[in-house]
Amino acid sequence: MNISKRMLQIGESPIRKFNKYALEAQKKGKKIYRLNIGQPDVETPQCFMDAIKHFQSKVIAYSESGGEVDLQEAIASYFKGYGMDYAKDDIMVTTGGSEALSMVFTSVLDPGDNVVVAEPFYTNYNTFITAACGTVSPITTKAEDGYAYADRELIEKAINDRTRAIVCTNPGNPTGRVLTPEDIRLICEVARDNDLWVIADEVYREFVFDGNDITSFGMFPEFADRVIIVDSISKRFSACGARVGCLVSKNADIMECAMKIAQGRLSCATLDQVGAAAMYRMDPSYYDGMKAEYESRRDAVYHELSQIPGIVCSRPGGSFYIMAKLPVDNVEDFLMFLLTEFDDNGETVMFSPAEGFYATPGLGRDEIRIAYVLNSDDMRRGAELIRLGLEKYNSR
Amino acid sequence: MNISKRMLQIGESPIRKFNKYALEAQKKGKKIYRLNIGQPDVETPQCFMDAIKHFQSKVIAYSESGGEVDLQEAIASYFKGYGMDYAKDDIMVTTGGSEALSMVFTSVLDPGDNVVVAEPFYTNYNTFITAACGTVSPITTKAEDGYAYADRELIEKAINDRTRAIVCTNPGNPTGRVLTPEDIRLICEVARDNDLWVIADEVYREFVFDGNDITSFGMFPEFADRVIIVDSISKRFSACGARVGCLVSKNADIMECAMKIAQGRLSCATLDQVGAAAMYRMDPSYYDGMKAEYESRRDAVYHELSQIPGIVCSRPGGSFYIMAKLPVDNVEDFLMFLLTEFDDNGETVMFSPAEGFYATPGLGRDEIRIAYVLNSDDMRRGAELIRLGLEKYNSR
Repeated sequence: MNISKRMLQIGESPIRKFNKYALEAQKKGKKIYRLNIGQPDVETPQCFMDAIKHFQSKVIAYSESGGEVDLQEAIASYFKGYGMDYAKDDIMVTTGGSEALSMVFTSVLDPGDNVVVAEPFYTNYNTFITAACGTVSPITTKAEDGYAYADRELIEKAINDRTRAIVCTNPGNPTGRVLTPEDIRLICEVARDNDLWVIADEVYREFVFDGNDITSFGMFPEFADRVIIVDSISKRFSACGARVGCLVSKNADIMECAMKIAQGRLSCATLDQVGAAAMYRMDPSYYDGMKAEYESRRDAVYHELSQIPGIVCSRPGGSFYIMAKLPVDNVEDFLMFLLTEFDDNGETVMFSPAEGFYATPGLGRDEIRIAYVLNSDDMRRGAELIRLGLEKYNSR
Repeated sequence: MNISKRMLQIGESPIRKFNKYALEAQKKGKKIYRLNIGQPDVETPQCFMDAIKHFQSKVIAYSESGGEVDLQEAIASYFKGYGMDYAKDDIMVTTGGSEALSMVFTSVLDPGDNVVVAEPFYTNYNTFITAACGTVSPITTKAEDGYAYADRELIEKAINDRTRAIVCTNPGNPTGRVLTPEDIRLICEVARDNDLWVIADEVYREFVFDGNDITSFGMFPEFADRVIIVDSISKRFSACGARVGCLVSKNADIMECAMKIAQGRLSCATLDQVGAAAMYRMDPSYYDGMKAEYESRRDAVYHELSQIPGIVCSRPGGSFYIMAKLPVDNVEDFLMFLLTEFDDNGETVMFSPAEGFYATPGLGRDEIRIAYVLNSDDMRRGAELIRLGLEKYNSR
């Protein structure tokens, strides 16, 4: 029986492979600082469960395919708080940002088309783009440049006649890079000049540090017709398991196409939308507390990482990830060492090897991504364990 | 900017068009018996909300990509109740049966491939198959034959060298047709002889009436390697808005491919899975009560429809739909008449025009689908309104 050729191209997730060894290490009593996943330890706001507990209907019925109206309105009002004017029908609620990405790529890609993305990029883009019969045309960026990519020549080098969109994750995952208003304007101009969509994945919108302002691709009315925003409550409200996201655009064609897919899959989960609406209506001061917490985590892990001889690592301006180039040839081999051979007082550490974040074969083998989803003390200890592990690994 | 050609092929949902007129009629004070949608009025079992209310974790975290282990085990144990032996890893939890369908078509179809489906079929298959770059190769069935299709010659006529799977909805939506064990064996044999997958959409598994036994495609061990079951809690537990379904197969290749997609989208909603597990653990006598209720609804609506002169309609053996051929040229025109011109004591009725359930152009224009999701009195009244409407419509 046939398995589709495009899906066969996707290799097994490295996370899965290393998870097996991590579980074995845990069985042997090792404590592992898991800096590899984007699952924060921050509590989900209580109003999420409260709203769900107060849900009254006797039948858990389908919601509207485009989303519960109350949630759409709450999201519209949230955007208004940043000066962005999106109507209810510009906002389609999705099952996490993941479904929004899947809908967008299915809507804009014909078989053989590609999208331009700066590498390293969020590795699951590969899955969504491949499933939609497209490919990635990467803009290669470097650790030494802080993974900058808002450069016309660099971007246009990646564009060809089958390119349909530029995808930007801002703030960046895995790089933590935050685009300036000038960066965003330039990217949109390049998109306009090449008749491309701009797919702006802004699930880390509030995670911008050092007193910098939040800039969204939705803040540029002159490009509104080509901008598609992908959003999610997962990180903003530490509610990854609620699976509530949205797709936002003022372009009626893309919204109509996404609506066909949305109607095909009927609706998103009703209760989770009820909970999400309550969180979107919280006082915006909630974000200040959250941001301060992540900023101090970033400072903790960055400070500790900087102590490692030979590391290449810039202080990220946003999201909750930090990329680092390590003084080893192969970080997967080093991670295996950490999980199977190393410990310091019974403790070790886990990170994401970065090769999967690159489309260009061979890149990223000496880079890692760390998610600062644990408290500052744990982050410091995690970075210390990387340093101690490297010492042992390189002196074998 | 590009909108994908395959998505442009999908027309606007007719439901959307008629909904507008239905809302206008309601504004004018008309009561509408909505027999057009698969949203039952039956209460969701209380244990769903109870389990969610008792969920203790402070963080609503991602669940495992394949599903919460507790839910996978509850589903395995449910299948065991029917004598089917599925292990935890043969069961992947999905966001409704919808996501399971989407995963399966993405996994088995390359651009230009097709799947064989008996028409009329669940119209959203079109969306999933088209999004996966495939097409439908229909087996045309007829109202006069009760929509039978388990016939080797009939099925093989639809198979060509780009066919990858036979899709069976059993019990049938929209036909209500229930396959016998002999039917299922024949379909699997045809699939085996042509090296095809069998995709068995069994979301109405318990909705089998007249004292007949439930037969699942999962009950034939000799075909287990090519059978993929799509399932959902939506209908079984009247929990459409929970969006919990699953994909079940003993074929490791399809499960591995589906897992790539599952890991890409991270996880299903955590709370809904907690509630679903509780429902799967209810005493199986729950199904008896539900089945009796739907059987009496079927009898009520079928009896009333039979009174309509010129109707072609068989008593369906399962699911909660009934197809009927009406003595009109165009049921969409008739539906528009019912919503905009007709009423009986301020009441009218809405059904699904069947053209969208056919892949062959021009078929189904004189057929409708009725969902018996309301209580027996309302179903009788709904059918009566169709009869009264037809009298007025045909005597204009």
